[in-house]
Amino acid sequence: MEKITHAIQDEYPDEFAHCFGCGRLNEAGHHFRTGWDGDKTITIYEPKEEHKAIPGFVYGGLLASLVDCHGTGSAALALHRKNGHEPGSGHAPPRFVTASLHVDYLKPTPQGTALKAIGTVEEIHPKKWKTSVEVFAGDTLCAKGEVVAVVMPDTFKI
Amino acid sequence: MEKITHAIQDEYPDEFAHCFGCGRLNEAGHHFRTGWDGDKTITIYEPKEEHKAIPGFVYGGLLASLVDCHGTGSAALALHRKNGHEPGSGHAPPRFVTASLHVDYLKPTPQGTALKAIGTVEEIHPKKWKTSVEVFAGDTLCAKGEVVAVVMPDTFKI
Repeated sequence: MEKITHAIQDEYPDEFAHCFGCGRLNEAGHHFRTGWDGDKTITIYEPKEEHKAIPGFVYGGLLASLVDCHGTGSAALALHRKNGHEPGSGHAPPRFVTASLHVDYLKPTPQGTALKAIGTVEEIHPKKWKTSVEVFAGDTLCAKGEVVAVVMPDTFKI
Repeated sequence: MEKITHAIQDEYPDEFAHCFGCGRLNEAGHHFRTGWDGDKTITIYEPKEEHKAIPGFVYGGLLASLVDCHGTGSAALALHRKNGHEPGSGHAPPRFVTASLHVDYLKPTPQGTALKAIGTVEEIHPKKWKTSVEVFAGDTLCAKGEVVAVVMPDTFKI
């Protein structure tokens, strides 16, 4: 399975690294990791056996979770790049939260295969970024999604 | 915490009861249970400690999962009722899959509180039902969602 070398989630400060989807410090979580692939963003994840809808097919809520964290991670990557930084450069990245999530389920998603979420991210407001996401199992496009993420507001801070 | 007496998921045949979100036979899953509350549908769930975005607040992917299974469960309840049946009557219910899922995250969702997903379901095609969902933490409306669910196609069958 391909691996992301420099993921944005590797560099979130510890207090923002507990997300069930993408927090490196959440022992029970999915540990999604999102990086650049040229000007696209990419997250690779192989669902566990229990992440099924029916035996053999991946649960839609897991795909929604993948799209969600891929979207917030992509927004963080994009604003970080706009600010002149890349993951791995040692600069603390911005942290986003999800404003809205949309997923269209196009085909049943087989289990036992690494999934790739590929994102195209664009700024729609200085604090708001939209990521269009395609989720592939092998060469098959199984789902399409869209995430609007906003810079984490003060109401969310700890 | 309130409890659903007759949930549609209690009556899915065993082979369709493995969903990570709502399958009663998935030991690692969430075990969402969806029933009628008058002409609305309801799912009640208290997220686990690990289901956080940051400490104190629920992970958006978990809310998406709750909305997803609430939507397919609501569609199954509604078509079952249209066919003259209620959960608990001993008739096998129809089984739906998600065509599309949308969630708007309105407010940070506090942990340590049971969440209620309340659904309004309508037929938009003989095999396609739409559920509008509101997710409350106590009296606070934290998220709104919409699920389009379709009767499980043959391509999904095992």
